Amino acid sequence: MSRYETYLREHRDRHLAELKDFLRIPSVSALSAHRPDVERAARWVADAMQAAGLEHVEVLPTGGHPVVYADWLHAPGRPTALVYGHYDVQPVDPEHLWVTPPFEPDVRDGKLYARGASDDKGQVFLHIKAVETLLRVDGALPLNLRFLVEGEEEIGSRHLPAFVEAHRDRLRADVAVISDTTFFARGVPAITTGLRGLAALEITVRGARGDLHSGLYGGAVQNPLHALVELLAGLRGPDGRIRVEGFYDRVRPVPEEERRQWAALPHDDARLVAELGVPALFGEAGYTTLERLWARPTLELNGVWGGFTGEGTKTVLPAEAHAKITCRLVPDQEPEEILDRLEAHLRTHLPPGVTLEVRREPGGARAVLTPHDHPAVQAARQALREAYGVEPVLVRMGGSIPVAETFATVLGLPVVLLGFGLPEENFHAPNEHFHLENFDGGLRTLCAYWPLLARGAL
Amino acid sequence: MSRYETYLREHRDRHLAELKDFLRIPSVSALSAHRPDVERAARWVADAMQAAGLEHVEVLPTGGHPVVYADWLHAPGRPTALVYGHYDVQPVDPEHLWVTPPFEPDVRDGKLYARGASDDKGQVFLHIKAVETLLRVDGALPLNLRFLVEGEEEIGSRHLPAFVEAHRDRLRADVAVISDTTFFARGVPAITTGLRGLAALEITVRGARGDLHSGLYGGAVQNPLHALVELLAGLRGPDGRIRVEGFYDRVRPVPEEERRQWAALPHDDARLVAELGVPALFGEAGYTTLERLWARPTLELNGVWGGFTGEGTKTVLPAEAHAKITCRLVPDQEPEEILDRLEAHLRTHLPPGVTLEVRREPGGARAVLTPHDHPAVQAARQALREAYGVEPVLVRMGGSIPVAETFATVLGLPVVLLGFGLPEENFHAPNEHFHLENFDGGLRTLCAYWPLLARGAL
Repeated sequence: MSRYETYLREHRDRHLAELKDFLRIPSVSALSAHRPDVERAARWVADAMQAAGLEHVEVLPTGGHPVVYADWLHAPGRPTALVYGHYDVQPVDPEHLWVTPPFEPDVRDGKLYARGASDDKGQVFLHIKAVETLLRVDGALPLNLRFLVEGEEEIGSRHLPAFVEAHRDRLRADVAVISDTTFFARGVPAITTGLRGLAALEITVRGARGDLHSGLYGGAVQNPLHALVELLAGLRGPDGRIRVEGFYDRVRPVPEEERRQWAALPHDDARLVAELGVPALFGEAGYTTLERLWARPTLELNGVWGGFTGEGTKTVLPAEAHAKITCRLVPDQEPEEILDRLEAHLRTHLPPGVTLEVRREPGGARAVLTPHDHPAVQAARQALREAYGVEPVLVRMGGSIPVAETFATVLGLPVVLLGFGLPEENFHAPNEHFHLENFDGGLRTLCAYWPLLARGAL
Repeated sequence: MSRYETYLREHRDRHLAELKDFLRIPSVSALSAHRPDVERAARWVADAMQAAGLEHVEVLPTGGHPVVYADWLHAPGRPTALVYGHYDVQPVDPEHLWVTPPFEPDVRDGKLYARGASDDKGQVFLHIKAVETLLRVDGALPLNLRFLVEGEEEIGSRHLPAFVEAHRDRLRADVAVISDTTFFARGVPAITTGLRGLAALEITVRGARGDLHSGLYGGAVQNPLHALVELLAGLRGPDGRIRVEGFYDRVRPVPEEERRQWAALPHDDARLVAELGVPALFGEAGYTTLERLWARPTLELNGVWGGFTGEGTKTVLPAEAHAKITCRLVPDQEPEEILDRLEAHLRTHLPPGVTLEVRREPGGARAVLTPHDHPAVQAARQALREAYGVEPVLVRMGGSIPVAETFATVLGLPVVLLGFGLPEENFHAPNEHFHLENFDGGLRTLCAYWPLLARGAL
């Protein structure tokens, strides 16, 4: 047993009690009534960082909830890692479905139940306690660390990009480490090396000045709803491929080695079908489900509306019809370029008799991808292997994590997503929990990770 | 000048005063607060019929507002006409846009302004006064007449089909004459010989059990919105033709003679474009606008909805997507058969990965068509010619009039739509009015029509 493990064992009860204190603060960022609680959680984090031995601890204002910053920079010549997490949590409703109240932490069957236990207070806490452990045991950290813990992740990290821009210098690092993700499955530790990006727009198709009666005008004018469905249907072929010209131009093929690794993962299409309740899966021909989710771009209709939607029949030809479209992007697609191409396609293929308005939505993001052979990825792999005694997997995620894209784009950092949650831990739902096996495993991993990362050639 | 005209001239002031009395009753069928007014209007009609010399006058209950019945059946061996109209009116809002209050009739520039002046109290009144004139002048009518004046036309004639079914015997006739339509344009009297029918359904496309996150699942499952737009887009070709198999099987070609007549009508596509504010007209290739509106079936999307429709972006794959579809039908399309074919098409072409629910809406109706050479049409033509001194036109309407279909289907009657409104008279809108030239012309027409119809071989 390493000296870190001995320390962790000796202090486990205290650590767990402290985490429970943290979880008792109802820091729901979405609800203004909880603003004082969010403040209190920021302070709690700052105090815990200070107690652990981090320096320059500050609660920094943003346009919204504050960011907690801290660092330890006494390892000249060694790499610097920027650790990110968030202290805010999701709302708790429907509250009556919680077995124990969301802000009264409770341990049952080796799991710690509370809002934020897994997402993300538990994981932020692991990082603080790993620092405490290394400093208490060794008297110093093996590398330089900076912490950025925000309070607006659950409301879209609204003010973070501006904050990062404004504090570039303070955030200088060699790698960003984010612990806000999950294992691939229980017992299958994972490092996430890729995220998809996003581009969004809303379109409006317009016909006559006002709604028309289908008896008086039906057949003689274009119906904006019909024009819209034609336009939208044309965006994708029956093979699931996006038909927007140039959409795939910059898309990198999935490396053969990664395809092989993903094919070996314990993923089961039939189980996914049952879980979602769909009659069958559907996606771009020529790719597996994981490839479609992780390495292929998509174009999705998130909302379509127009005309009469009430009960019964109204024989109306509506004046307008609308759609919201988002694209999930992969490396090296550029959000603005994709929107250019999409808009050009829509304008070219607009059916006759209507006009088109296209409005780009803010919030576009590039995909994030860190190479498997990056030293920070390899060090994480080794740390998980040591802490769990199994071979971790390297995966990607189909979603976007805006902060990861901010770190990659604004700070130019490689991003390692080293998370300790499990997919079944009900984040964003009632009865969120955190498996204590990963409370311990996470601490062991981080205590192994920083020394390994310090020795790696970053 | 005929003896009828002399009588009409002598009694014009009284007639107009009586019509104003009728128009003062706010018989808005849609608003329960006006229920007593609707009752009052029914009684008013009954009293006016009695005073005119009609017999067996009755205010008959329905499940909703009552029907007023009356007859005059002393012309054995002569044809019987069933006259239909309605005494209920549309709501008046926005009331502040009325120049004079909607239920305070006012004559300005030769037009009588009031809610119901044109639609349909004014036209019902013409029929009652034509009977009065013929009976006062001749002592008898030249044919048998039955009157059915309802109080629910503006709320969809909900109880009329059942009423007609229940009173088949009392409504026996050779022809139905409906005065609730308009001239083709001012100075262009028209007889409407055809109406389109209607068939309606609502569909729901379902994917997963609940909404999904497009980052976590986008690309791996079918998006119900995408499946829906593909399905809907496939219903129509770029040439505007409906692609549902068998949709056109029973559609009669437009007779060459009718096409020629319609082509000669004072219709202007450019004016329609300007009026509606559309960039261009659009419709089935190979047909003129009037042919598309009057003699070709359509398939229209009246409502499409699903997913997120609020402000901004929500990266959701909705669990469901919906559409409301109606078809305007022409002779001899059968509503149920069309829905069978449409449903079969939808099921056959459903994209993979989703399920489909189809719900047929009530309110289907067959098209109505009365041949140009029918004696009741020819008599109406002659009557209009005599009354107005111009050649009337024979037209169709793209909409449906449920009562016309009821008379045609339930009673097996040919239907003549002989209306005296003008398209610009703001029915259903503020400042509804009736041109007094057609108050006089309508009375002249009806006084000429019944004798002509009596002599025609019905």
